[in-house]
Amino acid sequence: MTKATRQFGKLFLVPAPLDFGCDEDIDLQQVMPMGTLSAAASITHWICENAKTTRAYLKRIDACTPLKASIQSQIITELPRQVHKKGDHLGGFDAKPMLTSVLEGEDMGLVSEAGMPAVADPGSSVVRAAHELGIQVVPLVGPVSLLLALACSGLNGQNFAFVGYLPQEPQDRARRIKELEQHALKSGQTQLFIETPYRNAALWSSLVQSLQPGSRLAFSCGLTLTSAVNQSCTAQQWRDLPSGKMPEGLNNQTPAVFAIGA
Amino acid sequence: MTKATRQFGKLFLVPAPLDFGCDEDIDLQQVMPMGTLSAAASITHWICENAKTTRAYLKRIDACTPLKASIQSQIITELPRQVHKKGDHLGGFDAKPMLTSVLEGEDMGLVSEAGMPAVADPGSSVVRAAHELGIQVVPLVGPVSLLLALACSGLNGQNFAFVGYLPQEPQDRARRIKELEQHALKSGQTQLFIETPYRNAALWSSLVQSLQPGSRLAFSCGLTLTSAVNQSCTAQQWRDLPSGKMPEGLNNQTPAVFAIGA
Repeated sequence: MTKATRQFGKLFLVPAPLDFGCDEDIDLQQVMPMGTLSAAASITHWICENAKTTRAYLKRIDACTPLKASIQSQIITELPRQVHKKGDHLGGFDAKPMLTSVLEGEDMGLVSEAGMPAVADPGSSVVRAAHELGIQVVPLVGPVSLLLALACSGLNGQNFAFVGYLPQEPQDRARRIKELEQHALKSGQTQLFIETPYRNAALWSSLVQSLQPGSRLAFSCGLTLTSAVNQSCTAQQWRDLPSGKMPEGLNNQTPAVFAIGA
Repeated sequence: MTKATRQFGKLFLVPAPLDFGCDEDIDLQQVMPMGTLSAAASITHWICENAKTTRAYLKRIDACTPLKASIQSQIITELPRQVHKKGDHLGGFDAKPMLTSVLEGEDMGLVSEAGMPAVADPGSSVVRAAHELGIQVVPLVGPVSLLLALACSGLNGQNFAFVGYLPQEPQDRARRIKELEQHALKSGQTQLFIETPYRNAALWSSLVQSLQPGSRLAFSCGLTLTSAVNQSCTAQQWRDLPSGKMPEGLNNQTPAVFAIGA
């Protein structure tokens, strides 16, 4: 907890739009405040998951508000693969060396592939390192799929948890769903989770089969896209859909967020 | 789960800036996407916690992008007091009658005093009612203090919970802090909570005294304000501050979010 000196740069947490890997390109200004875009346009040093997609994002920012430095001249450093795979919240990775430029006075941006860095995505090791070095951390406003999904779920937003991914193995997944449902019903805490899009159908079918009739199940698919769909009702109402039918708008290509609650 | 017909309006979830009750007025365009501001400017029917502050917010929106209808002519309905006091996630309040205009084809906006409606604030009863009536719910992007606080905490953002307010009574509060800490250490789930600003100092002192030396404690105060401060370190490091000293930037006037984790 060294006190930040005026000579240090800042670490900006730069949100990204939610159209990564989707067919549709969102108009950046529809989902990103000008404050965020101009802060991002003035940054020349980046930490990211993937340099190529970060360059593509910078190109889109440049079309809204000119970048301070050309994309070619930006210094873009990728988080190591171990961080992508295992996450970086367990303390095994020391990100301090990645922040040398900030100690030398440069502002740096931490960006993820979609949404807010360090939320449902790697990056917390970099933020922790910044705090340890006494670097000021500035989170910028942008889309966060989890919170948009929670707001439109109609479920309890005054007590909620995000638990990441559920197990892939069917029996383990069903067991975990029942566990989360029990916790939601007992404590009133809404339980949010995500899945790799190509497993959305498998997860959905397991949810509809495993939940008690009166429990509420909501999904949001393609948040902020023009094709965005969200729905919320009881497991019994979902079961009443024609057998095996996925709800309209939920598919195996588009990122979705799921929520269960009382 | 009636299917929405083309004649229905939509329910927009309209975020508000985080400067409510603060000395500083944030420039709306710094924290709100143009997409959100123009959607809000075209809405003429509102559900809110407080009609007066909603009108003040509409005036600020009008300065960025002209409102479709004058503020005087907007139909603004307040959520009943019982919903403010007890929350509305328990199902005791039927918000369907509030959505009559939407069934008649008008778009409506649900707005809270700060941040995202129905997240750490009332509104979920209205969203639930919309789903029951087959009304399309459209969450708009804007600032959400909880997620900004989580991102800049450096704590685990891949598994986290927001648990609302802690008890006010000192012994109950200390017990609850230890309970949340145990859960965070055991499960790796970051625990976020808030407090009424004038109790920030009391909560802080209880946190610093109750937590184990190695547990991490973070706070964010005045998120998105120019005076915003966030810090994150271990309870022991906080204890090493001169006795009784609050960390710089944390005070009893400005809304804060707290987080504990491993």
